[in-house]
Amino acid sequence: MVVSLSRRGEVEPFHAMDILAEANRLKASGIPVVSMAVGQPSDPAPAGVRQAAAHALKMGLIGYTDALGLAGLRKAIAEHYGDHYGLDVPPSRIAVTTGSSAAFNLAFLAMFDPGDRVAIAAPGYPAYRNIMAALGIEIVEIELDGAAYLHAGHLEAAHRQKPLKGVLFASPANPTGAVIPAAELSALIKTAQELGIAVISDEIYHRLAYTAPDTTALARSPDVTVINSFSKYYCMTGWRIGWMVLPEELVRPVERIAQSLYISPPELSQIAAIEAFKATGELEVVKARYAGNRELLMQRLPELGFALAAPMDGAFYAFCDVTRHTNDSMVFARRMLAEAHVAATPGRDFDPLQGHRTMRFSYAGSYDDMLEALARIERWLK
Amino acid sequence: MVVSLSRRGEVEPFHAMDILAEANRLKASGIPVVSMAVGQPSDPAPAGVRQAAAHALKMGLIGYTDALGLAGLRKAIAEHYGDHYGLDVPPSRIAVTTGSSAAFNLAFLAMFDPGDRVAIAAPGYPAYRNIMAALGIEIVEIELDGAAYLHAGHLEAAHRQKPLKGVLFASPANPTGAVIPAAELSALIKTAQELGIAVISDEIYHRLAYTAPDTTALARSPDVTVINSFSKYYCMTGWRIGWMVLPEELVRPVERIAQSLYISPPELSQIAAIEAFKATGELEVVKARYAGNRELLMQRLPELGFALAAPMDGAFYAFCDVTRHTNDSMVFARRMLAEAHVAATPGRDFDPLQGHRTMRFSYAGSYDDMLEALARIERWLK
Repeated sequence: MVVSLSRRGEVEPFHAMDILAEANRLKASGIPVVSMAVGQPSDPAPAGVRQAAAHALKMGLIGYTDALGLAGLRKAIAEHYGDHYGLDVPPSRIAVTTGSSAAFNLAFLAMFDPGDRVAIAAPGYPAYRNIMAALGIEIVEIELDGAAYLHAGHLEAAHRQKPLKGVLFASPANPTGAVIPAAELSALIKTAQELGIAVISDEIYHRLAYTAPDTTALARSPDVTVINSFSKYYCMTGWRIGWMVLPEELVRPVERIAQSLYISPPELSQIAAIEAFKATGELEVVKARYAGNRELLMQRLPELGFALAAPMDGAFYAFCDVTRHTNDSMVFARRMLAEAHVAATPGRDFDPLQGHRTMRFSYAGSYDDMLEALARIERWLK
Repeated sequence: MVVSLSRRGEVEPFHAMDILAEANRLKASGIPVVSMAVGQPSDPAPAGVRQAAAHALKMGLIGYTDALGLAGLRKAIAEHYGDHYGLDVPPSRIAVTTGSSAAFNLAFLAMFDPGDRVAIAAPGYPAYRNIMAALGIEIVEIELDGAAYLHAGHLEAAHRQKPLKGVLFASPANPTGAVIPAAELSALIKTAQELGIAVISDEIYHRLAYTAPDTTALARSPDVTVINSFSKYYCMTGWRIGWMVLPEELVRPVERIAQSLYISPPELSQIAAIEAFKATGELEVVKARYAGNRELLMQRLPELGFALAAPMDGAFYAFCDVTRHTNDSMVFARRMLAEAHVAATPGRDFDPLQGHRTMRFSYAGSYDDMLEALARIERWLK
């Protein structure tokens, strides 16, 4: 037997994906699971997006594109920065990617070498940690310890302990939904730049904030790497299409790596995504539904003993302290799925140290699903 | 200015993709380039594939799937091993991937750690080298030096110099089109196993051999990792959908890494790909066209001073010695594109040492395009 297994293959699973796989198995066996596990809108992509895809299918060849994406999509994304943020960004700085997943991998590969120290917030999106681990980057987890978001003080303290090469943060954040206020974001980026720390800003939940307008890190500095995607606001998860806005110096390195690692993003999704920016009316209706779900969960989850562990400023997540019910959220999540047929994500995904105390509930589903899930959880807890 | 650039970002570009980007720029400016640069069928995906995609678009949500892919597609791929090779492979050993690109990245990450020595043949597919370089794997390039393919003797010699952890080969090969004869393939795998070397078999050009039936490495050992894709025979390049057949022990590590690095392959492409195995009639017509192109190039390229540097056993490539025309195939390829408007790939992509002497011509296009390209090259050379 000659099977080679690497040490780096021993990364932590993405538990939400394991829960999704288990939920899919249950559904396939006829059990009507309500999923609050994965951050996935229950609405399909906007009609114009689907029409463009259908048209492209009729036209025939779906082929390789430039590694950085179709010129038309790069232009549409660049224009979005003008329309939405009032920023002038040239299409040449846009890299279209196979979801934000590819964007993270490309950013990490192009910016950091093995052993480089890169800070992230805990709790945070698990793929940051898991991709960096696979690539040999030293992950510096900054425990927020009750703070809603990462701020300049956190960064200074971590850098003082041992110098950082980079920092990555998200606003609105996953799993907490927290939004970094504009002034705090400016201070964070200014501090990073003064300390010589490269910045990656994950803006995948932009356009999904409920209490404040979006502020992009790009408005603070052309040196930040911004990552975004059509998966969340634009309801295009399974299309696997995202983008980066890159500092000029990073464009060619990212292109070179993307040529070999991805060849190009899926062309059909690229063609379709061009239409996504025109669908604001339709997408704001979807967002209004999230806002309704948010109101519901904000009231009902605490009533059911799930204390809110973070403000629900944005994204579509409620991040809860579950210690009233369990000291092991992983076991609790598996039982809730098996017995109540409601899927949610154990906090372990987001925080290896404190995650046994927390869970994340996605409210990207329908209002009826939220009602049904809450009713099932209530019955099950009794 | 705080832009972080990694050393590993300095990988070689995939020159064929640079040529593609340049060809796309020329086309966009109205110049009718004939492309023989990229290994891309000029036919669209089979009708049934496109119909399934159109139907899925109408049904609505295109979402995340299990990280290892839709159960229906994993089953269809497993059945293909029964139908085509007479092999019994359980669906649980199939991982659906975002093209073979993701499959290579996942295999390398799950199997090898930084510093591990992995052998590949030169000339060979450049992404092998570029991905491994990005991941810190030590690449051992075995120069074929006129041999058509990698054989057991090559492997033994390289291993004797310094032990290898893995070996990766393709049959039919890119860029040479060479097929490893069945007995030689058995000997190669047997030798690898005796020496404790893990095997990755790139079978992306299976069903595109013109002189011998396909033999899969999987028939020799359940311990090999087989990589394949819907891009080539199945005419689905831009759909970004491929697969791996994994040894049992590698399934879970690959799943864990895929969850964070890719989330899941594009769902629309997965749904559509299930139909690809039913389209053999249609696809054999396409293959017959390649066979006609092959006959044409086999005769005409040598007449134009491009000596065949490898047998044209399979795939859709003619690999030529261009030293009668140039000592720098990179410059030659750029001039041929700019002046004759024919794109082909410089050998540097496939062989850093000897590639200045060679070029690869893809004959995956139409017969008329082949005739036109040859006519342009002939006029241009005069």
